[in-house]
Amino acid sequence: MGIYLKGRSFLKMNQKMNNFDLNSYLLKKRKQINAALINFLNCNSNSSLISRAMEHSLMAGGKRIRPILCLSASEAVGGKSDDTLRAPCALEMIHTYSLIHDDLPAMDDDDLRRGKPTCHIAFDEATAILAGDALLTLAFEILSSIELTNKNNVFKWLRVINTIAKASGYNGMIEGQIKDIAAEGKQLGLEDLEEMHVLKTGALIEASIITGAILGNGSFEQIEKLKIYAKNIGLAFQVTDDILNVEGDPVIMGKDIGTDQAREKSTYPSILGLDKSKEFAKNLVSNALQTLEYFDNKSNPLRAIAHYTIDRKR
Amino acid sequence: MGIYLKGRSFLKMNQKMNNFDLNSYLLKKRKQINAALINFLNCNSNSSLISRAMEHSLMAGGKRIRPILCLSASEAVGGKSDDTLRAPCALEMIHTYSLIHDDLPAMDDDDLRRGKPTCHIAFDEATAILAGDALLTLAFEILSSIELTNKNNVFKWLRVINTIAKASGYNGMIEGQIKDIAAEGKQLGLEDLEEMHVLKTGALIEASIITGAILGNGSFEQIEKLKIYAKNIGLAFQVTDDILNVEGDPVIMGKDIGTDQAREKSTYPSILGLDKSKEFAKNLVSNALQTLEYFDNKSNPLRAIAHYTIDRKR
Repeated sequence: MGIYLKGRSFLKMNQKMNNFDLNSYLLKKRKQINAALINFLNCNSNSSLISRAMEHSLMAGGKRIRPILCLSASEAVGGKSDDTLRAPCALEMIHTYSLIHDDLPAMDDDDLRRGKPTCHIAFDEATAILAGDALLTLAFEILSSIELTNKNNVFKWLRVINTIAKASGYNGMIEGQIKDIAAEGKQLGLEDLEEMHVLKTGALIEASIITGAILGNGSFEQIEKLKIYAKNIGLAFQVTDDILNVEGDPVIMGKDIGTDQAREKSTYPSILGLDKSKEFAKNLVSNALQTLEYFDNKSNPLRAIAHYTIDRKR
Repeated sequence: MGIYLKGRSFLKMNQKMNNFDLNSYLLKKRKQINAALINFLNCNSNSSLISRAMEHSLMAGGKRIRPILCLSASEAVGGKSDDTLRAPCALEMIHTYSLIHDDLPAMDDDDLRRGKPTCHIAFDEATAILAGDALLTLAFEILSSIELTNKNNVFKWLRVINTIAKASGYNGMIEGQIKDIAAEGKQLGLEDLEEMHVLKTGALIEASIITGAILGNGSFEQIEKLKIYAKNIGLAFQVTDDILNVEGDPVIMGKDIGTDQAREKSTYPSILGLDKSKEFAKNLVSNALQTLEYFDNKSNPLRAIAHYTIDRKR
């Protein structure tokens, strides 16, 4: 309870301190990221079926939270932006591939994503599987680009590739999806639910932030602090997703609500109830903000994103 | 016809010259590769469902032709073997992922592979999709390993990652699979058939050979020569696959024959007939052998593999 109250005070203090205009920041970054994504996709592409399927899902209006976290973490440690935005783009490609495969009939069997037909509905199942495969592969292609890599930075990029591969793989995001599928129709305990989310969404969010810090030449200590920040907002993000699935506005979100309950999925509201879930999310954000006390005001974007994690409507 | 005869003479000459014991070589390499594969898979794994599914397909007794080509190409340019065999293992992981996804009900819908139930039969469709995803991701994880990479070799490994990613992606292997699916029920011309195979199987075979040459510190000229070798044996390999599907022994191959004809697939025998297909394959192998004249007897394994490409029974 002590930690909880301490967390709350950080939440209030930071809300007052923070005059940072997050909306403009997010809009600007999203625009840059979208331009870079379409640029990477269209390099060498001849409007083939596969690249149209990749574009369909990649450009369907995502929040771009992972690439933005990558950029904000780099800024927080004093790094300059890499103009090609290839690490942020690779992270969004991997996130999108995971959504395409999760939506398949053999998995969640979802027809709508971000208000648009899912990839296997807009195209077909085979094309959707391959479009996911291709986005995952393209992520590693752009991360390892010889043309774009300054020889002095090669080791940094190898670390980035390794960080992202580990987080996305069978000890990270993929294991999270396996656990999610295994949990269907069961009521999980709080610990199992947290473990599933830490793997399924937390691992790639953490990798996004670490990647940004590596590319921005962050110190070992800075990276360790940012891992704590990442773990907290990653989980807060998921708790908020669960809450929005209960009481969000389907028009704003571009997807149906109440689907978790209909599928009898274990969620934070189903275990803790809505009020306790909201408190839990706030507490996580407070912890994240407390960790950022180690950084100067270049971490204001990360501060504002921590608030956004639970304040967002979609 | 001139080139063809020239090719034939190389085929005969090399058969006489070559006292190299390929069977022992292949057996030894396969054993090393299998040990390395299981080692990479079991690192950090706790016998989870996903790692069992990955192991099921990865250890189902493949020929390991891509990893062996990688090792032989490295030897041909005078390189020493990397004890961890991580590039060969990554190539086999990517090959296996592509087989798992190709076998899915939404694609070729195959129940048997290498004489064993395919991944989605032994497990289920969702697990098979994720096991494929996980093998692809693990390939890039081991290629980018910080622990295993000597700092002096970092740039070489970045080149390897990029080479493999490009070959596997939407301008390589995946585009080949898209073309293969699109060709179902159509009779392709020889040019379209070749283009499909160059992408679907040729690209990764070429990447295997280039990767070996990069890691063995091959010169630009050596790598260019090996590309020509790779293109020729890659296609010869596919033509032979088509021939074996007509007249191979299903017991030796561990899979049914006649399936191409039953599916009305375009193949070399269906377009050229059996005899002309065999001549075409021999000619490709002759071209490959001719290219190897540029190398000394350290390329004997590559020479022997060129012969094996068309002489094999499975």
